[in-house]
Amino acid sequence: MNHCASTPLVLSLLMLTLLACPATQAAKPPQTSQADIIKQSAPSDWRRLDPENTLVMEINGQSVILELAPRFAPQHAANIRTLAREGYYTGSAIVRVQDNYVTQWADPADEEKEKDKVKSLGAALANLPAEFSIPFKGLPLTRFTDPDGWAPVSGFVDGLPVAADPAKNKAWLAHCYGMVGAARSGKPDSSNGTSLYAINGQAPRALDLNITVVGRVVKGMEVLSSLPRGPSAMGFYDKPEHYVPITRARVLGDMPTAEQPAIEIMRTDTATWRKLVEASRHAIGGWAVRSALHSNICNRTVPTRPIASPAPS
Amino acid sequence: MNHCASTPLVLSLLMLTLLACPATQAAKPPQTSQADIIKQSAPSDWRRLDPENTLVMEINGQSVILELAPRFAPQHAANIRTLAREGYYTGSAIVRVQDNYVTQWADPADEEKEKDKVKSLGAALANLPAEFSIPFKGLPLTRFTDPDGWAPVSGFVDGLPVAADPAKNKAWLAHCYGMVGAARSGKPDSSNGTSLYAINGQAPRALDLNITVVGRVVKGMEVLSSLPRGPSAMGFYDKPEHYVPITRARVLGDMPTAEQPAIEIMRTDTATWRKLVEASRHAIGGWAVRSALHSNICNRTVPTRPIASPAPS
Repeated sequence: MNHCASTPLVLSLLMLTLLACPATQAAKPPQTSQADIIKQSAPSDWRRLDPENTLVMEINGQSVILELAPRFAPQHAANIRTLAREGYYTGSAIVRVQDNYVTQWADPADEEKEKDKVKSLGAALANLPAEFSIPFKGLPLTRFTDPDGWAPVSGFVDGLPVAADPAKNKAWLAHCYGMVGAARSGKPDSSNGTSLYAINGQAPRALDLNITVVGRVVKGMEVLSSLPRGPSAMGFYDKPEHYVPITRARVLGDMPTAEQPAIEIMRTDTATWRKLVEASRHAIGGWAVRSALHSNICNRTVPTRPIASPAPS
Repeated sequence: MNHCASTPLVLSLLMLTLLACPATQAAKPPQTSQADIIKQSAPSDWRRLDPENTLVMEINGQSVILELAPRFAPQHAANIRTLAREGYYTGSAIVRVQDNYVTQWADPADEEKEKDKVKSLGAALANLPAEFSIPFKGLPLTRFTDPDGWAPVSGFVDGLPVAADPAKNKAWLAHCYGMVGAARSGKPDSSNGTSLYAINGQAPRALDLNITVVGRVVKGMEVLSSLPRGPSAMGFYDKPEHYVPITRARVLGDMPTAEQPAIEIMRTDTATWRKLVEASRHAIGGWAVRSALHSNICNRTVPTRPIASPAPS
């Protein structure tokens, strides 16, 4: 029996029919959980990390994998790559952990104002322009439909959370958990990538458009977020012996194949990613009793997974 | 010379006059920084912690101060108070730390299914109703003006971040950083306060209205957020020896005066608090080059400060 047939009916029956008729009610909420969407994904929903734009740092014997954002901050990405290849970050250290804000690293000698010990920049540039935003027009944004609050438009590009103002033709990386920026002093163009920070708490979106965001920790953020908080103002460690060394930092493509982290990351320009975002808006699976019917870019983590073999060299 | 006088002028001059005239432009943005607003606050802008609704836990030799929310979850607050007074939490432990989500504590024996060692609930109740929301009508909400995204209305009540839907006459505590909830199993009314969790990352607001929120960590959240993440699924520690003991937990009012944490907390129903929230929307002080012109309840931390003498007994 077809409940959607337009047979004449008394009002109560008609209402029941309307409620039961798919054509007259809102789209059916998704029934597949995020975990199952990931399980059911195709190989083409995943990509390898970009060998030239991924930095692998070792801290406390664990790996922290940072993917750079050359589309948004090309000059910072290039400088960070140069610094990494020169060994600048190997021997630098976590010097600041401010709770619910940032974990920051730098050259300890620079931090301690020991001028004679400060590392050379080598071929890296000391001065870069501020790279706070790029044009919105033409950006391949996988758009979120719910209001962001901080910006008129939001979504993902290249696996990164992006906010945008189409009227001003501006797009920028959003300061979500795990996002990495280049520390600067008072001048907007005073960052060069020698000191970087990762967001370790609630997204401090007021930083957006005020500082250059250079990428995202795609794996190992817990290594940075679980470090002891610094006792000094703004979370700086007050004693150099509390600094947590970065024992090694390499560009992914420079690592021997066998040492490369064998992970791949979900693409964010696919139907699968859009399905995952939509699923996050709904209570699926029985535990939750209420759907938020809302998703925010800073609440979505891009999944990673192990790959059978390391990236081809 | 009065720039606002309506003297006949050529168009360009008139436009300049309009731009310079305070009456015709938007309200002047605040010039006082949040730090200065706090410095300039009056004694009446602050309050003592409620002796009957504050739990002081000791973990790794440090204090974690949890203020309960009796207005929002009266039965959970009462049960937690009873459990604390019976010594239930003393000897319980952190059993789960999931990165960018929750730090959770419980009776280790309950966690390990060692039935003969499980702590007695004493006079505390095993079953409580779900306390997910309260009526919005009449709630003394200090309202935020910017859109929340997750709810039609948001603001603060009793120092706590609150979301609300006036059309449904519902208000509820928002899952912001540092908020504490009562863990539950599949049934909405299966929490009783024996296992609690604190949010340690980006606000997982999809949990709102799905679980009972019981209060907020007003001091010492960094003790919970900097613990090692658990290696098992959902961040559970896989070995009991990794559990981090809660060596002591007391109701503030039961502590000897000399041992009570000597802090007070800013009220959130004052002009000073509203000024602080408004200041957070603006770039003040020179470092930031752009004002977000937005504030979100989960980005605002209620300030605490030391008091000269402990609370009167």
